[in-house]
Amino acid sequence: MQNKPTLGYIGLGLMGKPMAINLLKAGYPLVVHNRSREVVNDIVKQGAEEAITPREVASRVDVVFTNLPDSPDVELVALGPDGILEGVKAGLIYVDHSTIKPSLARKIAQEFTAKSAYALDAPVSGGDIGAQQGTLAIMVGGPKQALDQVLPVFEVVGKTITHVGESGAGQIAKAANQIMVAAQMVAMAELMILAKKSGADPVKVVQAIQGGAAQCWTLDVKPDRLFSGNRNPGFKAYMQEKDLKIVMDTAREYGAPLPAASIHTQLYSAMLQMGMGELDNSAVIGVLEQLAAINLLD
Amino acid sequence: MQNKPTLGYIGLGLMGKPMAINLLKAGYPLVVHNRSREVVNDIVKQGAEEAITPREVASRVDVVFTNLPDSPDVELVALGPDGILEGVKAGLIYVDHSTIKPSLARKIAQEFTAKSAYALDAPVSGGDIGAQQGTLAIMVGGPKQALDQVLPVFEVVGKTITHVGESGAGQIAKAANQIMVAAQMVAMAELMILAKKSGADPVKVVQAIQGGAAQCWTLDVKPDRLFSGNRNPGFKAYMQEKDLKIVMDTAREYGAPLPAASIHTQLYSAMLQMGMGELDNSAVIGVLEQLAAINLLD
Repeated sequence: MQNKPTLGYIGLGLMGKPMAINLLKAGYPLVVHNRSREVVNDIVKQGAEEAITPREVASRVDVVFTNLPDSPDVELVALGPDGILEGVKAGLIYVDHSTIKPSLARKIAQEFTAKSAYALDAPVSGGDIGAQQGTLAIMVGGPKQALDQVLPVFEVVGKTITHVGESGAGQIAKAANQIMVAAQMVAMAELMILAKKSGADPVKVVQAIQGGAAQCWTLDVKPDRLFSGNRNPGFKAYMQEKDLKIVMDTAREYGAPLPAASIHTQLYSAMLQMGMGELDNSAVIGVLEQLAAINLLD
Repeated sequence: MQNKPTLGYIGLGLMGKPMAINLLKAGYPLVVHNRSREVVNDIVKQGAEEAITPREVASRVDVVFTNLPDSPDVELVALGPDGILEGVKAGLIYVDHSTIKPSLARKIAQEFTAKSAYALDAPVSGGDIGAQQGTLAIMVGGPKQALDQVLPVFEVVGKTITHVGESGAGQIAKAANQIMVAAQMVAMAELMILAKKSGADPVKVVQAIQGGAAQCWTLDVKPDRLFSGNRNPGFKAYMQEKDLKIVMDTAREYGAPLPAASIHTQLYSAMLQMGMGELDNSAVIGVLEQLAAINLLD
């Protein structure tokens, strides 16, 4: 690969747009495609070129990135009609930054390998702030030699890049991440509700425990928001729920019983039913407030 | 209270013995009582005096400490025949370091207040290592003026001392702590099982996620033990299960629905049924290994 490979970017949403802009700013030639045209016009003004289909993107670049909402979107763009696979040439590297089912990531990798190309599953964590600042964590599954080639590009958008293993392993790490994140969110909600109901001050209770064995990112970062009445995202609850559905689908596909994650999934599902899907994932406490008929801040 | 008040200690087990010894070493006159005599002889050799009943301990000291396994033990020793309350005099401070139901802590506080004495619920976290090194976290409920008096004593055995609120608030904080600890332990087990079952390396998966939003004390400290095949305590699973029963009893008493904590309680309960109660609380992964019919290290 020459010094600055030409990159393709498909999916210019909350995550994809700032990541693509960071790549442009780092001097990479960029060809973009997106369903909604507005963002394409915006990024073309900043120096990118436009392609009409994912197939055309693939045919014009050395590395293609996708950043899409869910597994079906990725399957369509990667493997569907006028998709990336149709424009593939030997040696092309396809990097998927979306969070999708590990089994689909493996299927995609097989298809690309059969055409002498590479696929890397490379889901990210760190949110839109991380995407804007180029400080994402990237969990990578797939061939090491392909990762080595795109590493300089990953270093533009990410801070921590971990090669987890073969194809699918990046998505498995992301699923694992979401198991723990959801557990922390729900546990924080439950302990605040218990404190409130039993007549203790949730603020003091959190202070008393956040430095010990209960310490976690969630208890470090989220209580101040909740105690100040701020339930705006952050990481939206409907995305958390979508990722938990991937966790549970994967658990069923590979035969892993996950009793606690299944409860967390149900609570986020309830949250969406209650119309709170656009709130922060820490706002799952709203479901428990309903169950307990109290408000945290009353 | 004079410069070095006389202290009483009841319950010289895994936690109580090293804490009592630290108090002796700090120069406090100490009167002890314990059901098993062996440890009494040992600590008397180191300079403590013995009393035959909790009542006698209370009658001879300024501050009484208990460190007992469970709520019924504390109820008996504090309020039962020949108990602390029978030996109480005005101004006595009773400190309970056990982990018990918040409602019992409140009942005890009422009884002591009625006799112009004080009671503090002051459960600890940090384990036997923390007890030996004097680095425990102490979560305190009860009157601030009593806490101020015993603070120099607390500072001998603990590093972080938090006044959470009125009587019972210390126990509520401890229950809150255990909600989060159990959630982390079970989530770690689930994500390792998912990784293993779906063909990724759990070691790499943990590395990929432990620096991000999944970061927690459990993921920082426990994976190395599990990956090296070490499931020895640490904090024993049967103690975790006992503390979770307190959580669920308290949830029922005060009307707080805790769907996730109830699942964690059931998993620790299963762990005990499977004969794994003496293992570390992180060994709850053993239950999931049975459910998934795999071994983490195979």
